[in-house]
Amino acid sequence: MNELKLVGCCRPLGSAALSEDEAEATAALFRVLSAPARVKIVNLLSTRDQPVCACEFEPTLELSQPTVSHHLKKLTDAGLLEREQRGRWAFFALAPSAAERLRSLVEMQELVA
Amino acid sequence: MNELKLVGCCRPLGSAALSEDEAEATAALFRVLSAPARVKIVNLLSTRDQPVCACEFEPTLELSQPTVSHHLKKLTDAGLLEREQRGRWAFFALAPSAAERLRSLVEMQELVA
Repeated sequence: MNELKLVGCCRPLGSAALSEDEAEATAALFRVLSAPARVKIVNLLSTRDQPVCACEFEPTLELSQPTVSHHLKKLTDAGLLEREQRGRWAFFALAPSAAERLRSLVEMQELVA
Repeated sequence: MNELKLVGCCRPLGSAALSEDEAEATAALFRVLSAPARVKIVNLLSTRDQPVCACEFEPTLELSQPTVSHHLKKLTDAGLLEREQRGRWAFFALAPSAAERLRSLVEMQELVA
């Protein structure tokens, strides 16, 4: 259950002693965001307060439908997006916890003091 | 000058309209942190207030010296670490801007409101 692991994971980078599993889970979340198309999807969704139809991403990102679906699935599996089926189309929104999770991930308390 | 591009880059994920170059620069920074060893290096350095000798990472991470050097170089090239030569050893510290840069990267203002 890679998905659950990612959702439940991720102590901040600045935590005292990151275990092997925690470092892997944190790296995996960064890996999900290491593709420009996925950054753009998160970027687009962060400016919308309503779920966005999968059909909107294809023209916006100038990518084929299978490629867009692949990126949306990666982001959803990582728990960053929520997916809702409406008739023939899936709609996507940022998961409510996404912003907070990403923020806490890069929090380095020792540095902020 | 990939290094400078990364250092100067990176509008927050929630910025209204991320250009192709900005999305690529943001993804590149996430990519640098998508390896568990690099997460661990950042984690270790974030708990230290003095530069750390490269020789310390090898036993801590249980990786060979060339592998450690590779990861340290990736992080340094991305502007996340600062490198200082002291005799035969290089010492590394988190760049002063690293925490703030990572934080601003994942800031999604629309979501926080």
